[in-house]
Amino acid sequence: MVPRRVPRWPSWLLRASPGWAQTAGPLGACVRQRGWPGSSWGAGLASPPARRGCSSTPSPPPAVVPTQERYPVLRLPFSTVSEQDVAAFARIVPGLVTTDPAELAAHNVDWLRTVRGCSKVLLRPRTSEEVSRILRHCHERNLAVNPQGGNTGMVGGSVPVFDEIILSTALMNQVISFDDVSGTLVCQAGCVLEELSRHVEERDFIMPLDLGAKGSCHIGGNVATNAGGLRFLRYGSLHGTVLGLEVVLADGTVLNCLTSLRKDNTGYDLKQLFIGSEGTLGVITAVSILCPPKPKAVNVAFLGCPNFAGVLRTFRTCRGALGEILSAFEFMDAACMQLVERHLHLARPVQESPFYVLIETSGSHAGHDAEKLGSFLEHALGSGLVTDGTLATDQRRIKMLWALRERITEALSLDGYVYKYDLSLPVERLYDIVTSLRAHLGPRAKHVVGYGHLGDGNLHLNVTAEAFSTSLLAALEPHVYEWTAGQRGSISAEHGVGFKKRDVLGYSKPPEALQLMCQLKALLDPKGILNPYKMLPTQA
Amino acid sequence: MVPRRVPRWPSWLLRASPGWAQTAGPLGACVRQRGWPGSSWGAGLASPPARRGCSSTPSPPPAVVPTQERYPVLRLPFSTVSEQDVAAFARIVPGLVTTDPAELAAHNVDWLRTVRGCSKVLLRPRTSEEVSRILRHCHERNLAVNPQGGNTGMVGGSVPVFDEIILSTALMNQVISFDDVSGTLVCQAGCVLEELSRHVEERDFIMPLDLGAKGSCHIGGNVATNAGGLRFLRYGSLHGTVLGLEVVLADGTVLNCLTSLRKDNTGYDLKQLFIGSEGTLGVITAVSILCPPKPKAVNVAFLGCPNFAGVLRTFRTCRGALGEILSAFEFMDAACMQLVERHLHLARPVQESPFYVLIETSGSHAGHDAEKLGSFLEHALGSGLVTDGTLATDQRRIKMLWALRERITEALSLDGYVYKYDLSLPVERLYDIVTSLRAHLGPRAKHVVGYGHLGDGNLHLNVTAEAFSTSLLAALEPHVYEWTAGQRGSISAEHGVGFKKRDVLGYSKPPEALQLMCQLKALLDPKGILNPYKMLPTQA
Repeated sequence: MVPRRVPRWPSWLLRASPGWAQTAGPLGACVRQRGWPGSSWGAGLASPPARRGCSSTPSPPPAVVPTQERYPVLRLPFSTVSEQDVAAFARIVPGLVTTDPAELAAHNVDWLRTVRGCSKVLLRPRTSEEVSRILRHCHERNLAVNPQGGNTGMVGGSVPVFDEIILSTALMNQVISFDDVSGTLVCQAGCVLEELSRHVEERDFIMPLDLGAKGSCHIGGNVATNAGGLRFLRYGSLHGTVLGLEVVLADGTVLNCLTSLRKDNTGYDLKQLFIGSEGTLGVITAVSILCPPKPKAVNVAFLGCPNFAGVLRTFRTCRGALGEILSAFEFMDAACMQLVERHLHLARPVQESPFYVLIETSGSHAGHDAEKLGSFLEHALGSGLVTDGTLATDQRRIKMLWALRERITEALSLDGYVYKYDLSLPVERLYDIVTSLRAHLGPRAKHVVGYGHLGDGNLHLNVTAEAFSTSLLAALEPHVYEWTAGQRGSISAEHGVGFKKRDVLGYSKPPEALQLMCQLKALLDPKGILNPYKMLPTQA
Repeated sequence: MVPRRVPRWPSWLLRASPGWAQTAGPLGACVRQRGWPGSSWGAGLASPPARRGCSSTPSPPPAVVPTQERYPVLRLPFSTVSEQDVAAFARIVPGLVTTDPAELAAHNVDWLRTVRGCSKVLLRPRTSEEVSRILRHCHERNLAVNPQGGNTGMVGGSVPVFDEIILSTALMNQVISFDDVSGTLVCQAGCVLEELSRHVEERDFIMPLDLGAKGSCHIGGNVATNAGGLRFLRYGSLHGTVLGLEVVLADGTVLNCLTSLRKDNTGYDLKQLFIGSEGTLGVITAVSILCPPKPKAVNVAFLGCPNFAGVLRTFRTCRGALGEILSAFEFMDAACMQLVERHLHLARPVQESPFYVLIETSGSHAGHDAEKLGSFLEHALGSGLVTDGTLATDQRRIKMLWALRERITEALSLDGYVYKYDLSLPVERLYDIVTSLRAHLGPRAKHVVGYGHLGDGNLHLNVTAEAFSTSLLAALEPHVYEWTAGQRGSISAEHGVGFKKRDVLGYSKPPEALQLMCQLKALLDPKGILNPYKMLPTQA
């Protein structure tokens, strides 16, 4: 199976490995539904696996402890929603005010089922003018507001902590324009990423970002959380690809910076303030974003590596050999693969290995790309960097390989309570914390796994246990944060701060930066009504 | 010379056109000095062409009218620098305080010789701690400060308007670190772009930005003005490539956001505030920036097009054919070429054409890139999009071709007083304003020319005249701005606002955005001491 010497274009790479044949059916079924269901996974609804039809254990999920009971957090002195408020909202968005507890339940719980609020009102405006009128009312009445997109966040930022009004962007889902010369998409904030992808792909462009939650997440939420994801390595940060934003400020002012220009140096780049501010400075209502041309050829290689040093060497070799066509370099450890196999019944496409690497190329000339990739793979196999591999060039098999990486989060959530860490670290030290944490925790953890965007220096470190426990949390924190700070890393690479990380920002940011953050919040939202208890340290 | 039918890899592209042979000597000499001299071009010093040794008219430049005499601007009530202040500065930066009027002259005038201040003090700190102590003193004493990098700006942002203290970054020119795995460069703000380019190119990386002023401009100034330039099409905005900044705030607080991490979502992305804020919110003292790997193969094609529609079609064809290896698509009109020939004695490398296009490819495989480019050129010539062309693959000839484009600004400055406009426009309408303005101005203008970064929708519209005249200015403004606003364009694509554009921001920004800009300025610089009279509208 594993040739010691391979021909220039290894033939084994072009045929399916044994695993594929026996699993192509169910895998394909899962892949078609691989987006996260997001807000519809509420308490009392069908459990995630049952919705996907891929799990063998469709038991109802355990109840989620309210955030205010699990964490030491005090409600701030906001007003409480009155009947008059509900009536006022009904005048602004007739028929789109929800007070039914059953319907609200799904919007009060995060999809990881780790935090829960007790909001009594859900509003679903359709226009920025409606958002403006809602916020003007809330500002006058000192009512707290929790903006919510697809509710796919990882840090408890997208659900209320107490009784904040939930302002959903779900009905703000219209594409406003697409320019097929420049590739500029302008759309409302509630458009689902996967639907936008389809929209622009039909026009020979792609979205500059892609993530596992694509089937549920909203572009407004992506921008508000500065989502990274799977195409970051190639197309960079949203700070570079977002061209314009329309934002409604806390007092209802509509800030229209929805330009479609690639370059605009007329004054401070205000939109940047809102990218990654998690709805605490304003509510993003529309987005203008630059889409790259759709590549004419895409290849995905899935490889097994004997150790992490081999993963690193593979990355360096690959970056040199593939150059501008390299569009993703992801890695996962053996424990991740075991969870994906066990909980999602996906089959491992290569021989069992301590580490796996997924490499994607996207280019404009299939022949050239194949030649570059073939040459790299020949070298990687010949030199022992890689011990086994498979290659996909058609869309169906590409999706199958990507599912193994994209659905790790889902597999973890089926393994128990998940403690999630999303770290930026020097790439050479990226995996050290995983090994060290396994030793540190011993049998207290069910699984300690590491995977992520190696090309961006971004590790997803996850620890699973049967249930939440304060003692395990105490063993993890601040240990993980101190370790990260010791490497001058970031304690939140792409997931953001939300509710869960707000009091550990000091591990990655100096006091002067935290102070300026608080000043900006006070300037833009003096009453603090926008997404309270999130992003800023408690004392702020 | 121009084949109707060309072979697959047109042989004429690989040989020098007649123009090259006769001009290679002087062109080469110019190319080696093609950076702008910046701050050393002061009143009374050698004129720009004499410094380059390429001009036939080394006459002394005319005196520059003080800004406060030419424009209706009133000095704000800042303190005046006293002897005690100078003594205090001498304690902070011993030996680096300049009060000699002759030495100050060059720092009081912009390189275009259009604005002039009357600062009496120039400070040249070497560390951020020194900058901090200087600003703390100025803040306490209510002294206005003009941060200055290479003084290569186009909008009068880099020189004082009245007697602001000039804070030069010239001696903050140390590279702090370079990581040759990630390509992250960390350096002080006063490093000259061209020197940084050399530093990283020796390590097989390139700077993500390049511009004509590279020989003089400072990286801190590039970031403070959100410089675009020649690599923007491929590597995008500094908002995406700058990873971290160290900034000294108006009161002397050092804000250390000098991270080298590719991803960091721990709180608001504060560095973004300072990118493009032109020194009005803080003084950038150090920069962390992501450098892309050095391409293994670079090709430049210089082509003649029969009309602007042909330029546009060439762009679309080229983007499709060259895909990920396209790194620049620049255009210039015949009038630009004539000025470059006349004032700089550079030779036109192709037959005379109404328009010229410069296409650069940068890739990882010379053979693949040549095949893609050859195939595109064959099509472009065969279909009549392009009527003549030349191709460069070696560095010397690549620099010669680039000089034709990069040195247009210099040629214009030798043609007389230059009215400069830097517009973002829908690419299809990019050249309309040039044609329309020629008709509008008639013989009042010496030349009306258009060139720029077509791939980014960025037109540089320039009008020359024998001397500054208020009547010609009145014919240009607000006409040009109204026309641009009518296309929903930007009245400053990459040059920024500075002193000259601050009162026309309203053509590209709504009142709510201008108000928020003023609020941010008031928050970060409540006394308004940082680069006053710049960036914000007069009434602010």
